[in-house]
Amino acid sequence: MKDYLKHHEWQIVEEGFDAHLNKVSESIFSIGNGRMGQRANFEEEYSGETLRGSYVAGVYYPDKTRVGWWKNGYPEYFAKVLNAPNWIGIHISIDNQKLDLAKCKVENFKRVLDMKTGLLSRSFTASFADGKKVSVSSKRFCSMANGEVGAIRYAITPLNFSAKATCSIYVDADVVNKDSNYDEKFWEEVSKEASEGKAIVTAQTKKTFFHVATGMKYVIESEGKKVSFDRINIEQREKFAGNVVQFDLHQGKEVVIYKYAAVLSSENHPKDKIAANCSKVVDDATAKGFDKLFEEHAKIWEHKWEECDITIEGDISAQQGIRFNIFQLTQTYTGEDERLNIGPKGFTGEKYGGVTYWDTEAYCLPFYLSTSDPKVARNLLVYRYKHLPKAIENGQKLGFVDGAAFYPFVTMNGEECHNEWEITFEEIHRTSAMAYAIRDYVDYTGDDKYFAEFGLEVLIGNARFWAQRATFSSDKNKYVVLGVTGPNEYENNVNNNWYTNYLGAWTLRFAQHAIDHVKKTDSKRFAEIAAKTNLKEKEETSKWKDIVDKMYYPFDEKRGVILQQDGFLDKELLTVKDLRKEDRPINQKWSWDRILRSCFIKQADVLQGIYLFEDDFNVETIKKNFDFYEPMTVHESSLSPCVHVILASKIGYKEKAYELYLRTARLDLDDYNNDTEEGLHITSMAGTWMSVIKGFGGMRVKDGKLHFTPYIPEQWKSYSFRLEFRGRVIKIKVGKEKVDTILESGEPLELFVQGKSVLLK
Amino acid sequence: MKDYLKHHEWQIVEEGFDAHLNKVSESIFSIGNGRMGQRANFEEEYSGETLRGSYVAGVYYPDKTRVGWWKNGYPEYFAKVLNAPNWIGIHISIDNQKLDLAKCKVENFKRVLDMKTGLLSRSFTASFADGKKVSVSSKRFCSMANGEVGAIRYAITPLNFSAKATCSIYVDADVVNKDSNYDEKFWEEVSKEASEGKAIVTAQTKKTFFHVATGMKYVIESEGKKVSFDRINIEQREKFAGNVVQFDLHQGKEVVIYKYAAVLSSENHPKDKIAANCSKVVDDATAKGFDKLFEEHAKIWEHKWEECDITIEGDISAQQGIRFNIFQLTQTYTGEDERLNIGPKGFTGEKYGGVTYWDTEAYCLPFYLSTSDPKVARNLLVYRYKHLPKAIENGQKLGFVDGAAFYPFVTMNGEECHNEWEITFEEIHRTSAMAYAIRDYVDYTGDDKYFAEFGLEVLIGNARFWAQRATFSSDKNKYVVLGVTGPNEYENNVNNNWYTNYLGAWTLRFAQHAIDHVKKTDSKRFAEIAAKTNLKEKEETSKWKDIVDKMYYPFDEKRGVILQQDGFLDKELLTVKDLRKEDRPINQKWSWDRILRSCFIKQADVLQGIYLFEDDFNVETIKKNFDFYEPMTVHESSLSPCVHVILASKIGYKEKAYELYLRTARLDLDDYNNDTEEGLHITSMAGTWMSVIKGFGGMRVKDGKLHFTPYIPEQWKSYSFRLEFRGRVIKIKVGKEKVDTILESGEPLELFVQGKSVLLK
Repeated sequence: MKDYLKHHEWQIVEEGFDAHLNKVSESIFSIGNGRMGQRANFEEEYSGETLRGSYVAGVYYPDKTRVGWWKNGYPEYFAKVLNAPNWIGIHISIDNQKLDLAKCKVENFKRVLDMKTGLLSRSFTASFADGKKVSVSSKRFCSMANGEVGAIRYAITPLNFSAKATCSIYVDADVVNKDSNYDEKFWEEVSKEASEGKAIVTAQTKKTFFHVATGMKYVIESEGKKVSFDRINIEQREKFAGNVVQFDLHQGKEVVIYKYAAVLSSENHPKDKIAANCSKVVDDATAKGFDKLFEEHAKIWEHKWEECDITIEGDISAQQGIRFNIFQLTQTYTGEDERLNIGPKGFTGEKYGGVTYWDTEAYCLPFYLSTSDPKVARNLLVYRYKHLPKAIENGQKLGFVDGAAFYPFVTMNGEECHNEWEITFEEIHRTSAMAYAIRDYVDYTGDDKYFAEFGLEVLIGNARFWAQRATFSSDKNKYVVLGVTGPNEYENNVNNNWYTNYLGAWTLRFAQHAIDHVKKTDSKRFAEIAAKTNLKEKEETSKWKDIVDKMYYPFDEKRGVILQQDGFLDKELLTVKDLRKEDRPINQKWSWDRILRSCFIKQADVLQGIYLFEDDFNVETIKKNFDFYEPMTVHESSLSPCVHVILASKIGYKEKAYELYLRTARLDLDDYNNDTEEGLHITSMAGTWMSVIKGFGGMRVKDGKLHFTPYIPEQWKSYSFRLEFRGRVIKIKVGKEKVDTILESGEPLELFVQGKSVLLK
Repeated sequence: MKDYLKHHEWQIVEEGFDAHLNKVSESIFSIGNGRMGQRANFEEEYSGETLRGSYVAGVYYPDKTRVGWWKNGYPEYFAKVLNAPNWIGIHISIDNQKLDLAKCKVENFKRVLDMKTGLLSRSFTASFADGKKVSVSSKRFCSMANGEVGAIRYAITPLNFSAKATCSIYVDADVVNKDSNYDEKFWEEVSKEASEGKAIVTAQTKKTFFHVATGMKYVIESEGKKVSFDRINIEQREKFAGNVVQFDLHQGKEVVIYKYAAVLSSENHPKDKIAANCSKVVDDATAKGFDKLFEEHAKIWEHKWEECDITIEGDISAQQGIRFNIFQLTQTYTGEDERLNIGPKGFTGEKYGGVTYWDTEAYCLPFYLSTSDPKVARNLLVYRYKHLPKAIENGQKLGFVDGAAFYPFVTMNGEECHNEWEITFEEIHRTSAMAYAIRDYVDYTGDDKYFAEFGLEVLIGNARFWAQRATFSSDKNKYVVLGVTGPNEYENNVNNNWYTNYLGAWTLRFAQHAIDHVKKTDSKRFAEIAAKTNLKEKEETSKWKDIVDKMYYPFDEKRGVILQQDGFLDKELLTVKDLRKEDRPINQKWSWDRILRSCFIKQADVLQGIYLFEDDFNVETIKKNFDFYEPMTVHESSLSPCVHVILASKIGYKEKAYELYLRTARLDLDDYNNDTEEGLHITSMAGTWMSVIKGFGGMRVKDGKLHFTPYIPEQWKSYSFRLEFRGRVIKIKVGKEKVDTILESGEPLELFVQGKSVLLK
């Protein structure tokens, strides 16, 4: 755990330069706008430890799979979000000395991420070997108003000298992925052009042939006037284009370099026009200028915060933590493009390939449902609908037939690209995350037309998967589900993982519900879907019912607890308190087999199921299971604690809830797991949001009505949050003594606080 | 399945050249002598499909591990037997046309492996593009009399022309492993020297720094006289040295090239003398000459066959098959060097790295016990004794303590080098294969001093492993063994695999037996061992006893069968007959999860346990289990059928036994699994031998006496085999009507045939 950032309500502030923390800060200070984003790399050269990363949403590379021992069914490739062309570079040298913070003496270093406006700032003074000293101040943002535009204001002031400065300003597509499996480069040049003040490089990815045009223009001013250059050279080489200019620096006088960038992808532009369009976008941005661009950008952020801010009084660190999570989530996914999704690291790193996991449905969806226009959440659902044919193909590759949809564990275009058999083939619960998301969406928004439009097809595919994946055990006279990995990935290839069995049976019931609903509300559309999916309704649904009726659920009568899986009680039943400090985290300290044999739980499993289907269990049952499983849970997945916060809140374990909340809220800011340098845990940030809203706030939707059972952690004075709900914006403020519910916009609404009806007007 | 080789009692014969079969033949016609060996690559250049391979016993390379997802506990490297310097090369060209069977027209091609004398011969006529035609006849062997020597007689006759021939004769250490994980070369040059008629290259392996000196001399004769050369060039380049000579070919006159090679490894020679020693060995071999060397070599083979031949009358294909298995086993491991072991591919290919598996103890040991001096089998045991400290280290890496010995699944020097968690960490039964081998050895030889000398330490280490690896289930009030993979690798991470539990408990009992024995027979030595191993006898052995007493064994009361593992009955219980042809082999046609969920068995598992502990089960029980499991067994491991043959023979299922025998006996000759081109299944060949001796012959050792319950497959007229047993050589001949037992040498001996005592004199 680290604690080097200043606590501040709206800002992340790093003071003083520590090269050892640079990669951590590069992650934390990342900026993006849903279309593109980047780590907080320096504009100038930096020869120290850095992970350079710019990313363009939806642009990926199918890197050839690397395995030790090939298993039948493995995919040929692992899709990776690409490190994309670098548009931030501004290299400065003075008297042949490079401005490089790894080599200069650095003072007064300050890095600030203003979350209110989405602005990354940095300032410092640097001394060269010969004693020359400059002060630098840079500001940078990726425009929320125009997702293809970025802008930099880079100001340099010579403090104790006057001299010639040489400045290289460029775009560079000769970039690599650090996680390339076979050390290959993924980009090839398509075209480039450079002229005075402007450069554009169009590059394409190998194999996937995405084109990305990256353009830049710059303006260099001093005291409001354009600086005149001694010389200007056009620089071009493979995948690189820019200018090198030389100009005078006068002691004490600031020179400001404005760099405007445009990043266009062939996902949004025809390939034959992309360079020309890029040229236009960068011209327009330059014409608009930095201040105007920033104003438009900040306005969007203002609006975003109105939708989704959470305020916490009395705990500035908690306030900063929750806003940081919301900020990163918001700039990762804006919901405007249904082809996009939320990579586990967003635009902040390469790890996990930046592709889509079940995290989206299980953790992120509730955040976007409550804080954005319903179309945002809907687009996340449609994304999976569009992948349905691929999910059916994925199933076929593993031997499933007749339209059984097996959604991938990791994907970019719908194809599976994970290659670890115990996950890829066995962590099958993820396919029902897509079904549960439909329920979540319809429950929250009331948009039950979604069944007819897209939902039913997904549910039929899903139900077919479970109908084939369950095995009838003649020994038990029950249906069993063999050979799975549950959300708790510290168990592999187990039989009858309760979470999986429960979710599978629920999916079959929910598919039946959807069929009934569509038949009743839109029989014509139902007939269409039945024809399209070749549904043998009676035969198939009676099989589904048989499985639902005879599904086997492991249970311990003696303790009255659900069993995580068959054989769980054969384990030595220890608790996390029995572990020595040097055993933690067990995923770094123990061999894999020891983890598997132990009772320790990486991530909520039975409790995850109880959380999802809370209404099926009484408080007594929840308590028993919480008391049994929580002490065994090591929370070594960032996705784990939030579920425990919600359940602990539900059963009145307030201290436990707050303890676990702390674990998630500042996970990245304090680098809790010592892995922030690889990127931020974006998807788990939504879990943190859930901890507050569903945990402390006790928000639920029942029969189309909002319910709250809020309480306040002792350490706080008050907290408040806003929710979008069916056309209204509601603000809930929870204090020590009372709960305020305010309708900020929209029609009157009845909601429930602690079970009591409240009519908001 | 292929059927292109002629059936012959003592020879493997290929007639006609089929380039598509060349790699298969290269495997089948491999030759070796326990110290070195090689695939049947051509001496001349060959630009067609080939897998070039020469191997030197004990010389390996730790190739950097390649995995998809790193698991804690994985080894850093995978040891690989190296493709070693090539000493066979004799390149011929005539008028700038290379003799290359991929380019010439080839007629009368014949390749013969004479198993009686260990001689590889080849003859053919080849026509060049310009119509010139030569006949070639080559003979090659790796001397059994001197493991460092190889010799070639390569004769060429111009049939329709006279011309100059150019001949390059060399040694080349610039060789690669096809299975290199990262396409690296593993050899570096240490020194080289070349003079007229002679060349030596000394190369060392990277990382492991083995030195191998490879030397050659040659003599070229025609009509008994040395051929005079037009010119002779010394050729040297990186890792390569040789001569290029030019001489006249006269139509119709044979020119014979004798090439003598010496291959010395730093395992047997000091590095600073290895080149000089190599020079001497090749000088001596050359001085001796081809015929004399061959005579010495053939004599050893004659002796070997006296020890281990099996004759089968009435079935020439079965005769050829069994001899081929014995031949390959014998030339792979001679038992003279306790540092060596039996790689699963011997000297015939790279697959599986050529390192040591539990195959050695479970399948090969009985062969060497019965066909060689007891020191051969003993050396195999001592090999593992020497690895005991490493086995303890392997255990420590996975979290075991206090001297628990966890033998590796795959090893060269005792360190684990396999990297697939479900095998590496979980296929734990292999560690007890080392214990069982001790029992096998002592039972067969009567050498119970072995306990005191080496055995007990291994058994204490082994017992400690099981004492820690078993878990007390308070739910069952039994000890359970969680998270294992049994011999049937089509199940991973199961609980209470019966074979594993049984073997674990037996190991604890056997360790106690060994303690008692050594205490009684050599109390001083016992005290030494107890001190060395820090044995807390009372405390430790009472824990062992507790586990033995309370070990859990899954069993189905209803069917009266042992259960392969917990939950086995939840599967859909199909039989192999239910599989469609297009599903076979399932390991190529099905995804891994489907295999895991199915009931199908790769390799004997429960039956393997019954085979090892046959006396613990009555025939009724064996039958029940055989009837239950055999129909589910797909035998997709080459190690599987032999165990079934032995049990089927025991319970009188003679047809089944013969059917399964056929599956193993000609596995490689007929390329049954379409994988012979990668190398031969050396270790499973010992299983074939067991099928005859323990299956048809019914050989057992009980209380130090040999027992036989022989029967004869209907298809055969008679069969006979020899056994070495406690200083005697016994020949058993089984005919349709009678069984002859003959004492060929040694003291009189009582043995039992069909339970009746027979005194051999």
